[in-house]
Amino acid sequence: MNKNIAPMGWNSWDCYGASVTEETVRANARFMAEKLKVYGWEYVVVDIQWYEPKADSHEYHPFTELCMDEYGRLMPAENRFPSSAGGQGFKPLADYIHSLGLKFGIHIMRGIPRMAVHKNLPVYGSDLTARQIAKTDSICAWNTDMYGLDTEKGGKAYYESLFKLYAEWGVDFIKIDDICRELPHCEAELIAVSEALKGCGREMVLSLSPGPALLSEAELYKQVSNMWRITDDFWDKWEQLYDMFERAEKWCIHAGAGHFPDADMLPIGPILQDYDKDNRTKFDRYELKTMMTLWSIFRAPLMIGGEMTGFDDFTMSLVTNSLLLQMHADVRHSHPVWKKKINGREHIVWMGCGAAGGYYVCVFNTSETEGEIFLPMSDLELADSNLTYTECWTGETGRCGDGINVRLHRHSAKAYYLQQG
Amino acid sequence: MNKNIAPMGWNSWDCYGASVTEETVRANARFMAEKLKVYGWEYVVVDIQWYEPKADSHEYHPFTELCMDEYGRLMPAENRFPSSAGGQGFKPLADYIHSLGLKFGIHIMRGIPRMAVHKNLPVYGSDLTARQIAKTDSICAWNTDMYGLDTEKGGKAYYESLFKLYAEWGVDFIKIDDICRELPHCEAELIAVSEALKGCGREMVLSLSPGPALLSEAELYKQVSNMWRITDDFWDKWEQLYDMFERAEKWCIHAGAGHFPDADMLPIGPILQDYDKDNRTKFDRYELKTMMTLWSIFRAPLMIGGEMTGFDDFTMSLVTNSLLLQMHADVRHSHPVWKKKINGREHIVWMGCGAAGGYYVCVFNTSETEGEIFLPMSDLELADSNLTYTECWTGETGRCGDGINVRLHRHSAKAYYLQQG
Amino acid sequence: MNKNIAPMGWNSWDCYGASVTEETVRANARFMAEKLKVYGWEYVVVDIQWYEPKADSHEYHPFTELCMDEYGRLMPAENRFPSSAGGQGFKPLADYIHSLGLKFGIHIMRGIPRMAVHKNLPVYGSDLTARQIAKTDSICAWNTDMYGLDTEKGGKAYYESLFKLYAEWGVDFIKIDDICRELPHCEAELIAVSEALKGCGREMVLSLSPGPALLSEAELYKQVSNMWRITDDFWDKWEQLYDMFERAEKWCIHAGAGHFPDADMLPIGPILQDYDKDNRTKFDRYELKTMMTLWSIFRAPLMIGGEMTGFDDFTMSLVTNSLLLQMHADVRHSHPVWKKKINGREHIVWMGCGAAGGYYVCVFNTSETEGEIFLPMSDLELADSNLTYTECWTGETGRCGDGINVRLHRHSAKAYYLQQG
Amino acid sequence: MNKNIAPMGWNSWDCYGASVTEETVRANARFMAEKLKVYGWEYVVVDIQWYEPKADSHEYHPFTELCMDEYGRLMPAENRFPSSAGGQGFKPLADYIHSLGLKFGIHIMRGIPRMAVHKNLPVYGSDLTARQIAKTDSICAWNTDMYGLDTEKGGKAYYESLFKLYAEWGVDFIKIDDICRELPHCEAELIAVSEALKGCGREMVLSLSPGPALLSEAELYKQVSNMWRITDDFWDKWEQLYDMFERAEKWCIHAGAGHFPDADMLPIGPILQDYDKDNRTKFDRYELKTMMTLWSIFRAPLMIGGEMTGFDDFTMSLVTNSLLLQMHADVRHSHPVWKKKINGREHIVWMGCGAAGGYYVCVFNTSETEGEIFLPMSDLELADSNLTYTECWTGETGRCGDGINVRLHRHSAKAYYLQQG
Repeated sequence: MNKNIAPMGWNSWDCYGASVTEETVRANARFMAEKLKVYGWEYVVVDIQWYEPKADSHEYHPFTELCMDEYGRLMPAENRFPSSAGGQGFKPLADYIHSLGLKFGIHIMRGIPRMAVHKNLPVYGSDLTARQIAKTDSICAWNTDMYGLDTEKGGKAYYESLFKLYAEWGVDFIKIDDICRELPHCEAELIAVSEALKGCGREMVLSLSPGPALLSEAELYKQVSNMWRITDDFWDKWEQLYDMFERAEKWCIHAGAGHFPDADMLPIGPILQDYDKDNRTKFDRYELKTMMTLWSIFRAPLMIGGEMTGFDDFTMSLVTNSLLLQMHADVRHSHPVWKKKINGREHIVWMGCGAAGGYYVCVFNTSETEGEIFLPMSDLELADSNLTYTECWTGETGRCGDGINVRLHRHSAKAYYLQQG
Repeated sequence: MNKNIAPMGWNSWDCYGASVTEETVRANARFMAEKLKVYGWEYVVVDIQWYEPKADSHEYHPFTELCMDEYGRLMPAENRFPSSAGGQGFKPLADYIHSLGLKFGIHIMRGIPRMAVHKNLPVYGSDLTARQIAKTDSICAWNTDMYGLDTEKGGKAYYESLFKLYAEWGVDFIKIDDICRELPHCEAELIAVSEALKGCGREMVLSLSPGPALLSEAELYKQVSNMWRITDDFWDKWEQLYDMFERAEKWCIHAGAGHFPDADMLPIGPILQDYDKDNRTKFDRYELKTMMTLWSIFRAPLMIGGEMTGFDDFTMSLVTNSLLLQMHADVRHSHPVWKKKINGREHIVWMGCGAAGGYYVCVFNTSETEGEIFLPMSDLELADSNLTYTECWTGETGRCGDGINVRLHRHSAKAYYLQQG
Repeated sequence: MNKNIAPMGWNSWDCYGASVTEETVRANARFMAEKLKVYGWEYVVVDIQWYEPKADSHEYHPFTELCMDEYGRLMPAENRFPSSAGGQGFKPLADYIHSLGLKFGIHIMRGIPRMAVHKNLPVYGSDLTARQIAKTDSICAWNTDMYGLDTEKGGKAYYESLFKLYAEWGVDFIKIDDICRELPHCEAELIAVSEALKGCGREMVLSLSPGPALLSEAELYKQVSNMWRITDDFWDKWEQLYDMFERAEKWCIHAGAGHFPDADMLPIGPILQDYDKDNRTKFDRYELKTMMTLWSIFRAPLMIGGEMTGFDDFTMSLVTNSLLLQMHADVRHSHPVWKKKINGREHIVWMGCGAAGGYYVCVFNTSETEGEIFLPMSDLELADSNLTYTECWTGETGRCGDGINVRLHRHSAKAYYLQQG
Repeated sequence: MNKNIAPMGWNSWDCYGASVTEETVRANARFMAEKLKVYGWEYVVVDIQWYEPKADSHEYHPFTELCMDEYGRLMPAENRFPSSAGGQGFKPLADYIHSLGLKFGIHIMRGIPRMAVHKNLPVYGSDLTARQIAKTDSICAWNTDMYGLDTEKGGKAYYESLFKLYAEWGVDFIKIDDICRELPHCEAELIAVSEALKGCGREMVLSLSPGPALLSEAELYKQVSNMWRITDDFWDKWEQLYDMFERAEKWCIHAGAGHFPDADMLPIGPILQDYDKDNRTKFDRYELKTMMTLWSIFRAPLMIGGEMTGFDDFTMSLVTNSLLLQMHADVRHSHPVWKKKINGREHIVWMGCGAAGGYYVCVFNTSETEGEIFLPMSDLELADSNLTYTECWTGETGRCGDGINVRLHRHSAKAYYLQQG
């Protein structure tokens, strides 16, 4: 992991929910390797319920049977992931993805399977049994698969048995769920997860869900993980996108050096599974630019949520905009400058510094009508007086002078790179 | 059930926790029949975990095995209740207790055993299975045996299967747990329990736990049950006893006509299991009188918590005081009159009317030192001017005149019956 | 004051707001003496701002001039109360009302006039000045006349100077405002008021406003005052009337022996000043009966709010119903029995005991449609089996038997007196 | 006002409370002009109660007399500010301070004097009177001088009359009190103040008190004022200093371009009036450096609170450290990097960018013992690999390499300037 760039990749949830298959994962990995890898996209992540044979949608099946090994560790459902047959787990799939020059990730739930507890299975590499370490009052509020673990009774041993297995498989990215907004209740368990991962012998990105994370716990998230969700599931609704400005404002100072507030997947292109039925993102093109711009200047992880093989040209342009992705990789110290109404239209300005010089300035029209504003250079407090700009979406260039006139469609954004000359 | 008198009986929890045996229950039933029945005591109630073979204390064993029939209904552990062998359940024990002229009760938990859900057992008398009706996010906070039931998915059918069985056994009293302070969350389930019981063909007292019940739900408790806990577990500590005055004040107007706020068991005599090791109640004799007096004028259910065969003479005097038990049976409209400091000592006065005439007036010294107060008759607003009194604990009698001088040891109480003449 | 009966009288607020005149007060006093005194009505109370020459409505005039003596004690505005001329204060008016066999009351605000503080007037009977005893951060939220008093700096001296004056005038009833729901903030000041009154040498009823009072302070209200408002201003709206059932439920056990929860004035007949313009109560006849019935069984003070000289026959029937007023005077231990829906209509039942024998049972139909219910005697837990009833509004009589069929119009009530025979 | 640098100056409160005199103000102004002006210090601000003749300490005198003109505008007490005699107000003193090349500021309270309201004085430049525009329920919680103003009734006119007068006097800085943490309650009044100031024809810094300001109102503070208090009064206690790190973290992104979160005055040198009696700051030298460092990187206004003529050499070194003051003037985008325990000692790191190039990095040891940490360059995400540092307090220089070893006394700080080379 390049610690100065928030992770970029693809995640199966937005499109496939609990039911993605190996075939789909491989197809998307191939697409990423051919078309997107060069822009920096690299992680391919299989989301929740890969161990459930009957998973068939975004819904969970209460109390359903899960695939486990004799130590209560969940295993890929062979009917969905054929290469895992014979106890090989995700190793064959990870090997394939690595062969494409990409990295492989999986989703896990906090805790140990309830059936492992009721069957009282032994914990690999320890003298403990599942019943001894399960936490009696700790269940997930929305999924019936697991019990939490009691770290005072040795629960960390189970996480160690997990990460040993994942290291053997070649996993590069762990998205662990039911452990982020659950602080401080789950603090001991989160620390156990972090320590077990650090001790497993393989570097993996650690991503925490679900959001909203607690701002008061920012330093803890930064120390134990690489990214943490600052919002509940993000979908293609303007209200949720608008709300992200406030979340980003609160969290922006905590991005950097291997730890990034996570604004969730990008619901772009075909999403929600049956994409031949036109379940394409409901965001319009302006809103999509606003989303990509905010995520980029905020240094949020960029995880594509849609089925990539179904991307149209416009969607491809969102994820292959080199100037925008340069901002995402290069910007430092980004933060909002102001939010105010000008001629009745609310605009928001963010700025940040380029690690390699220059400045990034993003302007958002969050109102319901198109309009133009003048952004005075004095609002940015820059020492340089002789600056030019390049806008990331339009490519337009110019001199900054006393300020920039910015014309924006409703719900749209522009992202300027300012440099000497 | 005599709807004008709050239930009176014995419950196994205070002394035996989760581990009472049939032998102990029979011994206490015999004792009650011989020594206490004549004073109105009648219910013999087996508390929690009678279906757990390994139960051995007041502690719960997480995720332990429970005895169930093929429909997921819990059955007595035969090692603890030998007469239940051969699938007879509690019928032989209930028959024995009925033969003594007493009534039999059991404790149950809200919901269906988790193992019945994970095994997906069928629900007796319906086409449903356990997995279909279990509520996914509903577990007890302190016991791992059950899942709650989803009434919108047919969960009531399981309660119907339970009460049918209990009616066959001859159960007279159900103490259902994890369903009282859990309102309004568990309201639908509570109503389902009440309806299932009313439809089972046998009258049973319905007792709700745990407390504290919600005052805002008083009318619901009154309509669906016969008693409901207004406090968490009550033990032999003055702080808890003192606190009960405030609880009783809030709930007193809701006692009567088959529905009684429940102040929990009476921790008297040997409690906490190993009674040969002198685990006798920590209340002193004054506090015990205060407790018996408050419970009686407040019309709380009187459920003995100690091992009755180990009662000494003083303890026997607490449960065989005819005047006090007359107040418990006869008093109506009882409520506090005032609480105030007199000469630096806090006293509390309660009063009520006798259904058969006369008045009951109780005076409590809740301060830390002995003292005497004058209780003016005018505080009681009685029309009669020619009253005499009899005190329940001392038997002393006298004329009321303008008022009564009441001398009380710290933490002690007196209970007066006032009548014409 | 008969301590077993909540005060009954007339108050100028509902009809005249801040602007009642001596002429009106005298006219109402004459009417009360002639027509209502025989039923128990006795207090004639002049409400707020009698010291303000320009008062003209229910509105307050911020920072307006007030009439004061040289010790900062407010004096009747002579243009409104001519008999007070020459520094006689309310003595001539009180004398007149006493001559009619009635009692006289006034409203005061907590604290000392702001102008007395800014002028730094001396406090009668002490060495203190107004500036020394005013509490710097204590003003009324809705009236600009006064500053609160700091009891730690001698503020009680000002209250002593007030009550000395009121005793000289012959005041029988003090309604003090801005000091009831303000607990615990104003506790020290309330106690100072109570002690100053008790030391003044004349018995006066002490009535606290505004509501809602704090239930947690019930014992304090009982010890320092005779009545305290349990609601904010009560007007002729069904929502407020319906809401009073819940307030009465919470407070009912605190009524009696000289201390009564106060449900505010009765907005009956002509109210809101210009009564020739038909500003008559918006309550219909059923709701008026409901109000009179609830106030009576709850033992609330009965203070007429309308202009009595404009009462029509129906309004007169509300305040001259001997059976109902007997219940108000005679009932003890009253409380709700239940509130539930029967055939979709919510009904509420209250009951109480007669000090002189018998029982009172009130039934309210709080639903939106007319209907009939059967009230089983068993709900009342009465020992007597041979009871007859008399209904207070209709006069109908009958035998109780197993219960009573009660037919009620929407928002209406019946009040039964049950007795042997 | 240079909008890129937070205001720097002296304020009379910390040392003189409510009772500073013209003589003292002139002496401090002369000292500043001679010794500190060259470092950027320029504002001389007279704090609260300059209109009160009897002011004599940090205490307020309830309901005391204030000097006013015939329009209810407060005027300097001539016994304390002799040059104001003859209705000249602060003009002579402002002229004097301007003659030294400095700027002059005063403190005002939100609202209009209560005596102006009770006397119903006319409002200069309008047809309104004080009584018409005073807000009836709006007083300050800790000072009895004023009533708030009702903007819906024309209250802004009074603020216009004030700023017109202050512009005539030559005021450059207004610290307005009782209007900052009072949002949103006082929002309308705050906007009226801002508009009145902008319309008065003279530029003045607008400073809002008291704190803590509301983070949710950040954009409003930024738009209407130049600085706003983020804390209640700050004094020389480590707990308050430590607490400021968290406040600064929340507010840091809102500093810049003419709007600065205000961490209150610097309690350095002689404070609390009787400085000959050794009422010097209780902060030790390490804590003073921590304070100066945090205020500087956070871009807080720097307002000296102590009596400058009594500064010793060390105190002078705090306010004449050119490197530190360069950071205060030059730093942009500053924010915390992390807070964590290293070897059991909590350290905090902040960083920012230089407007003229380079970076600023501050390290704080907030633990109770001395220790050394290694600060890796990778935590700072800098692109440059060939950096040197200069430390502001010690002057030590070196190469950054992979990181810097930082040794710090308990409660102490270092401030590094990093640049190419």
